[in-house]
Amino acid sequence: MPGRFLVMEGIDGSGKSSQVERLHHWLPRSRLMPAGAKLLVTREPGGTPLGEQLRPILFNRQLTVHSRAELLLFAADRAQHVEDCIRPALNAGHWVVSDRFSGSTVAYQGYGRGCDLELIHTLEQMATGGLTPDLTLWLDLPPQRARTRKPPTHQDRFEGAGLEFMQRVADGFQQLAVERDWWRIPAGQPCAAVEAAIQDAIRRTFTV
Amino acid sequence: MPGRFLVMEGIDGSGKSSQVERLHHWLPRSRLMPAGAKLLVTREPGGTPLGEQLRPILFNRQLTVHSRAELLLFAADRAQHVEDCIRPALNAGHWVVSDRFSGSTVAYQGYGRGCDLELIHTLEQMATGGLTPDLTLWLDLPPQRARTRKPPTHQDRFEGAGLEFMQRVADGFQQLAVERDWWRIPAGQPCAAVEAAIQDAIRRTFTV
Repeated sequence: MPGRFLVMEGIDGSGKSSQVERLHHWLPRSRLMPAGAKLLVTREPGGTPLGEQLRPILFNRQLTVHSRAELLLFAADRAQHVEDCIRPALNAGHWVVSDRFSGSTVAYQGYGRGCDLELIHTLEQMATGGLTPDLTLWLDLPPQRARTRKPPTHQDRFEGAGLEFMQRVADGFQQLAVERDWWRIPAGQPCAAVEAAIQDAIRRTFTV
Repeated sequence: MPGRFLVMEGIDGSGKSSQVERLHHWLPRSRLMPAGAKLLVTREPGGTPLGEQLRPILFNRQLTVHSRAELLLFAADRAQHVEDCIRPALNAGHWVVSDRFSGSTVAYQGYGRGCDLELIHTLEQMATGGLTPDLTLWLDLPPQRARTRKPPTHQDRFEGAGLEFMQRVADGFQQLAVERDWWRIPAGQPCAAVEAAIQDAIRRTFTV
């Protein structure tokens, strides 16, 4: 039986990474995964040796990167991630949790940067080879609140693009959540409540 | 008046780089370029700060890179190169010589690696925004001869992919030369004769 593919999406500062960490601890103990299935926790950009070399380039605020080039770099990272990491794990029956996937590209490069959405969908198809998540958890938090979680000195290229940019990204996630049937997690609650909502969504989705 | 865009194509070891260097010296003294036009000599992958960071990743033999990811990385490099470097120079009336351009992707990733040619053409359009060279000089040399020019210890990922791979790439260049009306330069001659053939091709193309 093929494994399950879970994705966590949301704007910067929405708490994805810490919730992914909690999932890493909880999911193997949840009794939801079949015996013998392992959990692979990964991220985009990154998740492969190639991706980890691309990640600092993509986040480097000092480097000029045109929006089409940026789009193609994220697609390259994703193509490698799917081929090298996600698909082999799923084929072996393992479960995969990824911190971001193709929805982030639609939200950031499409809604945020204004890249052509049709072009993005063509690239998404190229990069994923048609692979879609079994469950996408969307951590919904207003950009104004997310912003307070990280000091400006530590912002990467996307966080540093300003509040209006991040609002367009947030609007994109909201649109995607409807179109792609994502599970909305209100992320303004205390950490433990967000964690409980995530566990609930996963149980409802994967309990036979 | 917009500038002129010249491209040098050919397999590894065909002598492109040293001929590009000779062009760098000769072209500004050739009286072909209008007064005030400068010559920009550049290369792919590379040619921009982003591209120069991608170049070692693309040539690293130790790194696993799937063919679709490779294709997308070259497209990203080219999109940045066109937007940031080639198009602004041409718009300012300058001349540009590039060591490789989109033909290399068709030859290496399409004919060499066997990536879908339609996919490559879609990406080419995305990356170049429709920009095509005014003249492409194709240095034609059999892979067996090109191979003798570089010791195996210094081979990058493409040179190290073997003679059959490089033969497919060479066949690809031959096919492209017909389809895209490139200027064939027999590259097995002594360096000075190759240089003279290149200068002749450029004079014939750009003399008013």
